[in-house]
Amino acid sequence: LDERALKRVVMEVVGRDAVLDDCAVLPVGDRFLVASTDMLHAGTDFPEGMTDWQVGWMSVAVTLSDIAAMGADPADILLAVGLDDPSRLRPILEGAKACCETYGARFAGGDLDSHRELTLVSSGIGFTQRPVRRAGSEVGDVIGIVGVPGRAQAALEGHTHYLQYLLTPCPRVEEGRVLAAAGASSMMDVSDGLVSSLFDMKEANSCGYEVFSAQIPTVQGIPPDAGLDLALRGGGDFGLLFTCRPEVLPLPIPDLYVIGRVIGEPVVKLDGRPVKILGYQHHWD
Amino acid sequence: LDERALKRVVMEVVGRDAVLDDCAVLPVGDRFLVASTDMLHAGTDFPEGMTDWQVGWMSVAVTLSDIAAMGADPADILLAVGLDDPSRLRPILEGAKACCETYGARFAGGDLDSHRELTLVSSGIGFTQRPVRRAGSEVGDVIGIVGVPGRAQAALEGHTHYLQYLLTPCPRVEEGRVLAAAGASSMMDVSDGLVSSLFDMKEANSCGYEVFSAQIPTVQGIPPDAGLDLALRGGGDFGLLFTCRPEVLPLPIPDLYVIGRVIGEPVVKLDGRPVKILGYQHHWD
Repeated sequence: LDERALKRVVMEVVGRDAVLDDCAVLPVGDRFLVASTDMLHAGTDFPEGMTDWQVGWMSVAVTLSDIAAMGADPADILLAVGLDDPSRLRPILEGAKACCETYGARFAGGDLDSHRELTLVSSGIGFTQRPVRRAGSEVGDVIGIVGVPGRAQAALEGHTHYLQYLLTPCPRVEEGRVLAAAGASSMMDVSDGLVSSLFDMKEANSCGYEVFSAQIPTVQGIPPDAGLDLALRGGGDFGLLFTCRPEVLPLPIPDLYVIGRVIGEPVVKLDGRPVKILGYQHHWD
Repeated sequence: LDERALKRVVMEVVGRDAVLDDCAVLPVGDRFLVASTDMLHAGTDFPEGMTDWQVGWMSVAVTLSDIAAMGADPADILLAVGLDDPSRLRPILEGAKACCETYGARFAGGDLDSHRELTLVSSGIGFTQRPVRRAGSEVGDVIGIVGVPGRAQAALEGHTHYLQYLLTPCPRVEEGRVLAAAGASSMMDVSDGLVSSLFDMKEANSCGYEVFSAQIPTVQGIPPDAGLDLALRGGGDFGLLFTCRPEVLPLPIPDLYVIGRVIGEPVVKLDGRPVKILGYQHHWD
């Protein structure tokens, strides 16, 4: 069974919606509740040199990023901790708490267990008047991103100047809220890389996505070709990918870039040519 | 660091509330949202002989039991799956879905990752007009339980007649709702054993709990002494422990037993004598 086959199993048993959005959506009164869960573990998710405080921060940030990608305000975060070493608990919880407090969420509880491999699962809920899903792109919309993609990957590949993007990633909570209120037609976070995310968008819509290399911002201090490569395939950034009618822009978001447009043909194109899927693909969310 | 020390760390960083209740509670409009998360993994939580379907069922049932213990209606369940073997995914999800559907919850999504040791974390939310917390017991209240305690433990110790209680435990969702509506003053689930749960209740309140062996129902077909021992220390049952004013009873719950009374002295007593803590103590919830 490969990644695609597993995704098909999830779709068949749990349903298409469980795979296609960053969060589950539930109407509550005159608002919508969004909910997400993310599993991280030592073997694959925490880069070497990450402190336990950063491990805690990261474990909450991934879920806040999913909530941000729906355009929602985070409310409560729960953290299940499978602990390999009791002395790690305090710094992990302190990092998790700091991330919650930074983004206005409440660290509301969790579960604690011993585990051979440190395993953290954060779950969170948020609320919004207008959830922005992955589905909803329309032909003629522009494609935008928030955040320069590839900085976390650059750090992973030795550009230590960008370590903060890898070790204490910042979920784009305020930006997601502004985009939702302004009328973004579709949105997701780009934690798995830009090209991979464009394919995820295509899967949730019946249209296609064309982006232009000249418009994609790249990491400073790295040769342009290498920078574009990082931007296209690099995961670990907590940016947002969104679409909207052209007239929705500009918006008061400093780190926002228009990188392309939604097209009728259901493909992902770079500079006019179809591209293959890149980046890592290990998440079902 | 022992279990108590870890709990103290959680209390200090996350706060007392994170430790003292089965769920976090958040006011939403004229209702209350409750939220819980539970981590289970192969090494300690899934008895030998448990099928993958039952693993999936169990992983959802633990969270539904926490929601039930607040007197809430379950709404959405998310499941994070750390998968050791891809072929296990379908039966695990099918068991999880069956448990959701049985109790009126929606299986709304999750996360999927590979993991050396099968690890499942379910998170869930529910709603209630009147959340029943662990704190709230008053001197003069009666102590009641829903469900005969010790059946899961009996199965673990070879009484195969009771395997269903171990392998497909039933969260007491309807009973929790009835108890909350009737005015239960405090409540929790007894998944960690009756005596252990009475100590948890004591920790959340300023009063004490006296129970009487003659009133504690025991597993049929087992000598009374052994049955009482199972009832007191056995974990894995998804019963409810609650307190209420005597006049709240009787209630239309067939499996409900009055086993004692709330006393002023902050101790746990059995037949008039203080008891020591028993059962397993590995959960922070």
